[in-house]
Amino acid sequence: MIREPVAEFLGVAILVIFGNGVDCQIVLSQNPTVASFPRGDWTSLSFGWAAGTALGVWVSGGISGGHINPAVTLALATFRGFPWRKVPIYIFAQLLGGIVGAAIIYGNYIHAIDIVEGGRNVRTMATASLFSTYALDYMTNVSSFFEEFLGTAILLFVIFAMIDKKNMPPPAGLNPLLLFFLILAIGACIGMQTGYAINPARDLGPRILTSMVGYGKGVYTFRNQYWLWCPVIAPILGAQAGALLYDVLLYTGTDSPINRP
Amino acid sequence: MIREPVAEFLGVAILVIFGNGVDCQIVLSQNPTVASFPRGDWTSLSFGWAAGTALGVWVSGGISGGHINPAVTLALATFRGFPWRKVPIYIFAQLLGGIVGAAIIYGNYIHAIDIVEGGRNVRTMATASLFSTYALDYMTNVSSFFEEFLGTAILLFVIFAMIDKKNMPPPAGLNPLLLFFLILAIGACIGMQTGYAINPARDLGPRILTSMVGYGKGVYTFRNQYWLWCPVIAPILGAQAGALLYDVLLYTGTDSPINRP
Amino acid sequence: MIREPVAEFLGVAILVIFGNGVDCQIVLSQNPTVASFPRGDWTSLSFGWAAGTALGVWVSGGISGGHINPAVTLALATFRGFPWRKVPIYIFAQLLGGIVGAAIIYGNYIHAIDIVEGGRNVRTMATASLFSTYALDYMTNVSSFFEEFLGTAILLFVIFAMIDKKNMPPPAGLNPLLLFFLILAIGACIGMQTGYAINPARDLGPRILTSMVGYGKGVYTFRNQYWLWCPVIAPILGAQAGALLYDVLLYTGTDSPINRP
Amino acid sequence: MIREPVAEFLGVAILVIFGNGVDCQIVLSQNPTVASFPRGDWTSLSFGWAAGTALGVWVSGGISGGHINPAVTLALATFRGFPWRKVPIYIFAQLLGGIVGAAIIYGNYIHAIDIVEGGRNVRTMATASLFSTYALDYMTNVSSFFEEFLGTAILLFVIFAMIDKKNMPPPAGLNPLLLFFLILAIGACIGMQTGYAINPARDLGPRILTSMVGYGKGVYTFRNQYWLWCPVIAPILGAQAGALLYDVLLYTGTDSPINRP
Repeated sequence: MIREPVAEFLGVAILVIFGNGVDCQIVLSQNPTVASFPRGDWTSLSFGWAAGTALGVWVSGGISGGHINPAVTLALATFRGFPWRKVPIYIFAQLLGGIVGAAIIYGNYIHAIDIVEGGRNVRTMATASLFSTYALDYMTNVSSFFEEFLGTAILLFVIFAMIDKKNMPPPAGLNPLLLFFLILAIGACIGMQTGYAINPARDLGPRILTSMVGYGKGVYTFRNQYWLWCPVIAPILGAQAGALLYDVLLYTGTDSPINRP
Repeated sequence: MIREPVAEFLGVAILVIFGNGVDCQIVLSQNPTVASFPRGDWTSLSFGWAAGTALGVWVSGGISGGHINPAVTLALATFRGFPWRKVPIYIFAQLLGGIVGAAIIYGNYIHAIDIVEGGRNVRTMATASLFSTYALDYMTNVSSFFEEFLGTAILLFVIFAMIDKKNMPPPAGLNPLLLFFLILAIGACIGMQTGYAINPARDLGPRILTSMVGYGKGVYTFRNQYWLWCPVIAPILGAQAGALLYDVLLYTGTDSPINRP
Repeated sequence: MIREPVAEFLGVAILVIFGNGVDCQIVLSQNPTVASFPRGDWTSLSFGWAAGTALGVWVSGGISGGHINPAVTLALATFRGFPWRKVPIYIFAQLLGGIVGAAIIYGNYIHAIDIVEGGRNVRTMATASLFSTYALDYMTNVSSFFEEFLGTAILLFVIFAMIDKKNMPPPAGLNPLLLFFLILAIGACIGMQTGYAINPARDLGPRILTSMVGYGKGVYTFRNQYWLWCPVIAPILGAQAGALLYDVLLYTGTDSPINRP
Repeated sequence: MIREPVAEFLGVAILVIFGNGVDCQIVLSQNPTVASFPRGDWTSLSFGWAAGTALGVWVSGGISGGHINPAVTLALATFRGFPWRKVPIYIFAQLLGGIVGAAIIYGNYIHAIDIVEGGRNVRTMATASLFSTYALDYMTNVSSFFEEFLGTAILLFVIFAMIDKKNMPPPAGLNPLLLFFLILAIGACIGMQTGYAINPARDLGPRILTSMVGYGKGVYTFRNQYWLWCPVIAPILGAQAGALLYDVLLYTGTDSPINRP
């Protein structure tokens, strides 16, 4: 039983190590003191998060189901009978995975962060944004909420199609391949404005880490509790909406409350 | 029964959300007021449309067959016995999916479009082309028609190979993987001059949306009803040609009118 | 029986349409009169040829075996009992596919070629190299021969591993996925100096086409019959060497002359 | 029996041909005398190593298990009962494969290296780093060790998940697909600072080659025997740690010493 939350913890840790890692590598390497030429661009960034997600599910899928995202866990609890009693420990494990994954990457890139920031004691939003998401300047709060809601709704809609045996599921063991394309597409298509958190653990975990290592309260006070309503609440609600949409419009299985006899 | 057109509607919506999304993200992010650095290039664009196509088929394939393209539906009706009575509702659903998908992306990127255009009330071809296709300046009408005809002929030729059990079909559930490579290749190889519509719903749906939200009649008057003959008629005819070519040259199944006893 | 060479013809045509297509799109779009921004870079180019190869095999694999390369056909004849009597018609069909594929792409991009060359009557090596391969200036003849020999040896070595049931073959229908990675890697790793022809039909077919449409004899006289010894003879010999290496070192099947009882 | 180390030799040779090849192609082509435009960037580099790894395993997986990495061989010996008596010959074969693969690429790119270095008799770290890994200037020894340890720990952790039948293994024959994503992610996310050796044979083999062809002792004296502790010892220890982590936290099979009855 303990293996399930441990798998979730490790799955999110893998996801965040790769995701925060690609953020750090690409952004920090733009600095000529760090690297002689840039080590990637936005395309690499999409690939890093996409591959990280696929690998996070591959290491945990057979043990915990490979949710690695509280919004997914909650949608499965509402619509696919995932036991509510397991939800708190799953989410706790996922969040912890986000913190630990971010800590590992922070340790790995600390010297490059020092160079970009100008010293060990200087920490600003410039590098805080390598770990958690912050909307672009021109975005309104409504648009920010909408984009995270939308991205997670699509995420769950596609996941619910993927796990629907009567639709067109990939062969056993290849769900992560579909997820690779899904996260790649979300990052390439609707990932610019709010940074496609679409996963509260992937965003809040690293945010907590940054608040602990010297970035201060700014990571929480940005745009009046942005951290809560944009990358946490919007994904949770978007996930419910995307899952509901699939079950109302396409699903015929009787394990959904929509179709329950 | 209603689930089939609903699946087509949702499949095209997914395709257009990702496709129009990647167009918007990449082109709008070239503007330094929108983003501090570009969020992708033409390669990302090819990946976005390719992944969007694969995902659109993955969410609809087991329910409606995953056509998500009127040219595909018509070719399957002509050559594979897809019921003609279903064709109108399929195409209507696909077109509606294109409109709704484009509307979602338009809403998602409206502030960045405002910045690039110079205000909410300014809408020009510069951003209309993020939603539908317009040929490059140097292209003649004949060349434009030819490229869309060619692209869709190849699309259907490969799709007909993919669904031919006696050729080399991918394992069950992995047709979208082949389609990913196919759309990636079409975008990377013959996608520059007319924007590879190769799908009337993917082009006309978003075009209708743009005409409704302030882009005016210019989206239809461009090059003397370009909207009709280039991204609608050419793909439909090209699809018939590609399918015919496969059936005449390679197919042995007796469900094709070419081989019917 | 006729379906086999027809499948080879079509497979090479698909390969060359995508391959020559990506060459044209990327190089021609560097010209600001053609396109407002470049439509791809060397990475896209590798993806185009890789996806084109995978798709060429997917459309022909179940019918002709999907050789789409005379060097592959000859190696299979030498080492895997492919009937020698079929070899001439296979190679003829492959070569014809290369000519026709190149002709289609030449027609598709003719206006952009006119712009880059300066007119319909001007044709130089600058755009001839979009269709066939020419070594970089600094390359010696020995190095050029070596690179094409090496690339094709690796190609066949990996293909022979792929079709060895006792090694680690991909699931049925996914050989083209392995070939995608293989051609991607060859292009990204050893593709720069001689343009990785590694396939006489893919190179000589388009070369014949260029000689017919106005590029003149220069496509043959470059470096003293380069067209023959570098992209034709070197791949054929390299293929034999790579196949021999696999059979001598790793193969245990008794259908190889190396292991014949 | 001899086929096993031969397969390991060839698998590493393939890996290094592609890996060193992509390093050479991308870095050397930045020089305008070598090539008129760059042939790839860091993203292509990640793809080259990732595809090379997948192909190296595809050619050897069914014969030797496809370790192609001494750190993997040692971890499998410790935790999965791979016979210790085979370890020395496996590692010897892997190392030899690294030397031979690097020699082939060195020969293939020798003229371009001459141009970049300024002559056949000039060999500096600028091109030595195309073959083996050297940490960036700002990196401390501790950080360098940590990054290689971390990368290899993740590598083995994911590999152990991949070969765990009770987790979510890919279909037979598709382990290399997972490895493609894994190496792509490692390169894109934690590959910048020490060059992600994560494989003593891939690093020491080419390093020995460089010392033999004129780069001198500098390849060994860099940072006080960096060659030994960073790309050799750190990966070996990291691999043990990653494998241990998987077995302690997630594995239930009784073939691990952790769970042995």
